[in-house]
Amino acid sequence: MQTIFVMVKTELGRAYEVATLAVDTELVSEVHSISGQYDLMLKCYLDEGTDIGSFITERIQTLPGVRDTFTLIAFKAFT
Amino acid sequence: MQTIFVMVKTELGRAYEVATLAVDTELVSEVHSISGQYDLMLKCYLDEGTDIGSFITERIQTLPGVRDTFTLIAFKAFT
Amino acid sequence: MQTIFVMVKTELGRAYEVATLAVDTELVSEVHSISGQYDLMLKCYLDEGTDIGSFITERIQTLPGVRDTFTLIAFKAFT
Amino acid sequence: MQTIFVMVKTELGRAYEVATLAVDTELVSEVHSISGQYDLMLKCYLDEGTDIGSFITERIQTLPGVRDTFTLIAFKAFT
Amino acid sequence: MQTIFVMVKTELGRAYEVATLAVDTELVSEVHSISGQYDLMLKCYLDEGTDIGSFITERIQTLPGVRDTFTLIAFKAFT
Amino acid sequence: MQTIFVMVKTELGRAYEVATLAVDTELVSEVHSISGQYDLMLKCYLDEGTDIGSFITERIQTLPGVRDTFTLIAFKAFT
Amino acid sequence: MQTIFVMVKTELGRAYEVATLAVDTELVSEVHSISGQYDLMLKCYLDEGTDIGSFITERIQTLPGVRDTFTLIAFKAFT
Amino acid sequence: MQTIFVMVKTELGRAYEVATLAVDTELVSEVHSISGQYDLMLKCYLDEGTDIGSFITERIQTLPGVRDTFTLIAFKAFT
Repeated sequence: MQTIFVMVKTELGRAYEVATLAVDTELVSEVHSISGQYDLMLKCYLDEGTDIGSFITERIQTLPGVRDTFTLIAFKAFT
Repeated sequence: MQTIFVMVKTELGRAYEVATLAVDTELVSEVHSISGQYDLMLKCYLDEGTDIGSFITERIQTLPGVRDTFTLIAFKAFT
Repeated sequence: MQTIFVMVKTELGRAYEVATLAVDTELVSEVHSISGQYDLMLKCYLDEGTDIGSFITERIQTLPGVRDTFTLIAFKAFT
Repeated sequence: MQTIFVMVKTELGRAYEVATLAVDTELVSEVHSISGQYDLMLKCYLDEGTDIGSFITERIQTLPGVRDTFTLIAFKAFT
Repeated sequence: MQTIFVMVKTELGRAYEVATLAVDTELVSEVHSISGQYDLMLKCYLDEGTDIGSFITERIQTLPGVRDTFTLIAFKAFT
Repeated sequence: MQTIFVMVKTELGRAYEVATLAVDTELVSEVHSISGQYDLMLKCYLDEGTDIGSFITERIQTLPGVRDTFTLIAFKAFT
Repeated sequence: MQTIFVMVKTELGRAYEVATLAVDTELVSEVHSISGQYDLMLKCYLDEGTDIGSFITERIQTLPGVRDTFTLIAFKAFT
Repeated sequence: MQTIFVMVKTELGRAYEVATLAVDTELVSEVHSISGQYDLMLKCYLDEGTDIGSFITERIQTLPGVRDTFTLIAFKAFT
């Protein structure tokens, strides 16, 4: 499994509406509203070998109300 | 009480108009036009327990002329 | 409960050593090595009312090998 | 009068110690610990005509424990 | 006299057109196309006491084709 | 020859479409989808003496679906 | 194969020395000195399944003279 | 001729000392102390064909008191 964090900027005033949509999106496991430059932090679990760029482009950026994304790849989880 | 700083980018040429609106917004205590990447710096006082994300999304981002926001949370004031 | 994300830059070559320390730190629930400008992403759960600045300063920045931190406050989790 | 905001990154674990020093520094009127990339936000009032660069360099950067500064100039306060 | 640098992002494909307009704008003394995140670097000389925020908002951001600005204040010139 | 890297942000959901256009653009030798703030990384080879600003403005920013660009100039290749 | 771009900041004045070392590092295929915030851009090819975080931490950050790194993951190359 | 802008961060409290050194450095034509993340803005004129990376590395980064540099290349001056 591959973990990624996607920070999302939404259209103005629509962060909570987008958060509700994101929660119901396949492969998205957590959604938080956050401080800073972005409105939301998404944590997603993808299958190994999934094209991450394609996932961001086709599944996250196309959610209604999304305005911008910033993607961080998690290389390894420590436990 | 909870203090937050919100840096605001406005639609082009509308910084002073937005500043005037922001000054009259509940919970906003200071508004400054500033150098750098953003046009305005707002200082706001919220009640403890207020959902800050909701305040930014519903009260600040919906002011006419606001284009982007960056939120800094003040953890503690030193005096 | 209060969720925060702390991105950590470590001394060069020490990211995995710091990750191992962070995992065993009280209140830190997840540690990932990540792409981008920082080496690690930490997810922490604090009690409501905890001084977050004090937690970052005294518990995270003092872990041996930490060089820099960037803190994001999660306002709300959507489920 | 000239208002400036100075965001300060301190040596690791020393943010609160620096905050206490900053509060007692002439011309510094407010000190907050903050989320994001910097540890502290200072608000300072300078006399018109003061060389701001000189103030930052000689008064703020020389406080023991300061590691980095980011300066925002307030052009105008709205009331 | 007060020197400021304004980095300008223009609408896509219009950097050179905006540069030509900027050159003819009062108080703008130099215009360069540049590498990095912005398209143009402007150097402007304002009278002491001019409200810089107002200059940026009303004179630069309103030039047709300007999309975003980043303002740096020069405190002092060394010679 | 002059090498430049151009990071490109595309309209939402159009990164792969823009990538396909970019690959067929003269002087563009590599196109990758990437993590972080931008969607694509382009590597371009220009003739010495080409006006790079003009190339970015007229050839890259005008590709349908491009929303923002960030340009890095390669001074020298080490081999 | 997995392509990554690593932007490297070196100790002051040592960019070309680090570039020469990097060129001879296994898995590093290209090294350029660049404009902007970093001194060097490295392009590396890793085997699928390699822990990228470990590669950055143990192979790149430990090169003598490296001071900071920024990692971009290439999801897909377009040809 | 090739124009470049180099933003310089200096060791704490040494910005004006570095500015004085920079002014006397060959090829440096202007030095300003500035607001924002960096302490100084340098404008330099290089001969066409000069290796800019080498100039930054060997002439600017080696000035005593320099801590970090950010380089912007001017592609064209508009007049």
